[in-house]
Amino acid sequence: MPSVFVSESHVPTLVVDVMPKAELLDPQGKAVHGALSRLGHSAVSSVRIGKRFEITVDEVTDEVIADVTKVAGEILSNSVIEDVVSVREANER
Amino acid sequence: MPSVFVSESHVPTLVVDVMPKAELLDPQGKAVHGALSRLGHSAVSSVRIGKRFEITVDEVTDEVIADVTKVAGEILSNSVIEDVVSVREANER
Repeated sequence: MPSVFVSESHVPTLVVDVMPKAELLDPQGKAVHGALSRLGHSAVSSVRIGKRFEITVDEVTDEVIADVTKVAGEILSNSVIEDVVSVREANER
Repeated sequence: MPSVFVSESHVPTLVVDVMPKAELLDPQGKAVHGALSRLGHSAVSSVRIGKRFEITVDEVTDEVIADVTKVAGEILSNSVIEDVVSVREANER
């Protein structure tokens, strides 16, 4: 079922997903949802918009994953308003 | 290996990932990479920043997936500068 349109590169890559916290409003997502509703896409009941970081690394080791996980929580996301949803290797979809 | 920090909701959700095209510069990613380098995270060799949409739907059917895939290409991404990397169910990671 997952349709992959662009194959990811074979360079070792970690993917970090960051989303606005569930309990906070996401005005950008609300705007997109409104636009989709007006265009007749009635199956969609809500939209939230976050960020996806593709971080190319020299090698994927436990140490590198730990480092990137720390960076994800401290630098790539604002913990007041966002959650780090996942840190994983790019090909592990 | 994938560390999931926040479990996703059980509401049927499609995730759309959009990234800047590989052949284009990503100044935001470059800035983050520069900051990480200065902070001593030398394992990171590049960073690219895209968007992750969580689209809640009433039910995941082939028709809904086709509709969201169309929306992803026409509305959620700017095909001049961005690629839709994937459209998939949230739990199919």
